[in-house]
Amino acid sequence: MITAKAYAATSATEPLVPSTIERRELGANDILIDIKFAGICHSDIHTVRGDWGPVPYPLTPGHEIAGIVSAVGSGVSRHKVGDRVGVGCMVNSCRECEQCLNGQEQDCLNGNVGTYAATDRDGTITQGGYSSHVVVDEAFAVRIPEGLDLDVAAPLLCAGITTYSPLRRWGAGPGKKVAVVGLGGLGHMAVKLAHAMGAEVTVLSQSLKKQEDGLALGADHYYATSDESTFQDLAGSFDLIINTVSATISLDDYLRLVKPHGALVCVGAPGEPLDLRIFSLIVGGKSLAGSNIGGIRETQEMLDFCAEHGIGAEIETIPAEKINEAYERVLASDVRYRFVIDTSTL
Amino acid sequence: MITAKAYAATSATEPLVPSTIERRELGANDILIDIKFAGICHSDIHTVRGDWGPVPYPLTPGHEIAGIVSAVGSGVSRHKVGDRVGVGCMVNSCRECEQCLNGQEQDCLNGNVGTYAATDRDGTITQGGYSSHVVVDEAFAVRIPEGLDLDVAAPLLCAGITTYSPLRRWGAGPGKKVAVVGLGGLGHMAVKLAHAMGAEVTVLSQSLKKQEDGLALGADHYYATSDESTFQDLAGSFDLIINTVSATISLDDYLRLVKPHGALVCVGAPGEPLDLRIFSLIVGGKSLAGSNIGGIRETQEMLDFCAEHGIGAEIETIPAEKINEAYERVLASDVRYRFVIDTSTL
Repeated sequence: MITAKAYAATSATEPLVPSTIERRELGANDILIDIKFAGICHSDIHTVRGDWGPVPYPLTPGHEIAGIVSAVGSGVSRHKVGDRVGVGCMVNSCRECEQCLNGQEQDCLNGNVGTYAATDRDGTITQGGYSSHVVVDEAFAVRIPEGLDLDVAAPLLCAGITTYSPLRRWGAGPGKKVAVVGLGGLGHMAVKLAHAMGAEVTVLSQSLKKQEDGLALGADHYYATSDESTFQDLAGSFDLIINTVSATISLDDYLRLVKPHGALVCVGAPGEPLDLRIFSLIVGGKSLAGSNIGGIRETQEMLDFCAEHGIGAEIETIPAEKINEAYERVLASDVRYRFVIDTSTL
Repeated sequence: MITAKAYAATSATEPLVPSTIERRELGANDILIDIKFAGICHSDIHTVRGDWGPVPYPLTPGHEIAGIVSAVGSGVSRHKVGDRVGVGCMVNSCRECEQCLNGQEQDCLNGNVGTYAATDRDGTITQGGYSSHVVVDEAFAVRIPEGLDLDVAAPLLCAGITTYSPLRRWGAGPGKKVAVVGLGGLGHMAVKLAHAMGAEVTVLSQSLKKQEDGLALGADHYYATSDESTFQDLAGSFDLIINTVSATISLDDYLRLVKPHGALVCVGAPGEPLDLRIFSLIVGGKSLAGSNIGGIRETQEMLDFCAEHGIGAEIETIPAEKINEAYERVLASDVRYRFVIDTSTL
């Protein structure tokens, strides 16, 4: 076994603490990654606190991982020692079902294996990226292109692909009007990516507090959703709305902002059910959809796109000892726009 | 003015009665149609009874119209006297907006003009197809191909296009599994059309009462939704579900039947809002959509497709004096599968 330094939650209520975890010996298709940076995703907090159901403790979270390959198994062909690589929200899948064969491993019909708090196909519990090292199958590591710094690349592995995938699937590009609801970790990436794809981008945020940031990130327009006139003025405006917030929203109100044959796509969601009038979809033949990260092939495509367009996440780099403080600031929406842990401080 | 025989509602509560209505003199682009058959759509009943809001009386409903051109205006080029033509749910639109120019007149940004109970762009109130004659702009009449009898063609102008359009848009065809919820006027057309497109078709009906019919119409499988095991057995089965019922359903239950990246498309809807868990869409990247009839170009394409595949509606032809009785039978779901009025009996 390989012993790695880590930060871990020991219960749903205690702060995370320094810890060590065991990584498996390299199998033929495995690579060992020296983790350099790990992003803090809002979902890390929900997960370690048991908000989404019971989880095994001690638990090391983190699914926005960037590092350097330091060893490879005998059968590895995609990566070599010294390569800059990333790992996102999953580390395995069945690789045999229709979805896996189609490059949609996130929708694996036999269940993908999450990067932490999941049971891997060998029966072990996965542990995430707030750690010095991780061992993963080479098929679930992606290449981080030269020109993308590892720190700003880390959050792309979740926040980047989660927004890139629906923007591509619903055709964001020149001539298209795209709105992004919420300017947080996901939202700020959606703005950067949609702008780089050539779309006309509007931010719909609760207030105008982050307006200057939004415009600097690439938005063409910025509106406050707390202002009721926003919903009048923008009726029928958008080909695509990406909703990145997990707050309860009025789906009917947002669907009125969508053009005929357009879509409202949610990548954030509240736990409780929302109300929806089906007539909001029928009139104008509109779609309400969800999107869940993206496949490995598309994650590579996203990283290549980001390198080509000089896009990284906006980050605040912290030492490991600040993780618990960072959690509180994420919960208070006090981050512009992603915390990234410098794992050399573990 | 041209005086036409008709059946009309005089209030929300009285039975329809024999009547006469005035049709406008032919403008340069108008055609006069001798109506031969008019289908009875469930929405006719909702509309004349004021279920969807106040309407002007006396009101002649009917938006599934099939007949023969008997006169044409000086500038008409698409149709000539003697042509077999149909008129569906709309008789006008602005023809200048992005949607109209794109052949989506049903989504006209300035509002399409319904075939009855609507205010036309000249300020007159439109009157529908339970009538001996109608005058319409040639652009809103479609050709009924030889080989399609006028009586079985009439319901295609609403029930046909309403189901054809989403089947095409979401790619029903060989290798695709399509489910149709409800086997009524819309549902039976969805089954025939999806089968003709080459899809594997499943009917999801409340009971197995119409199973024999469903299989004869082209369904490969038939399940009762009152049987809870249906929702277990068919989890993740369908690329596309077309929901034709206006009853309250569990969207989350039906979305579980959809494959990753598949869609649940509603062409029927209850008036009240439904509950929806956004996670039902995010997991598997699924879509919930609505669809509203189709454009004029697509309506012509649908009729051509039906002629090519020998598809008409399953009908029960009635004389005008049976209209009120037919309404009661529609409300009791006692029709297989569409009433069509023989307008020679007006």
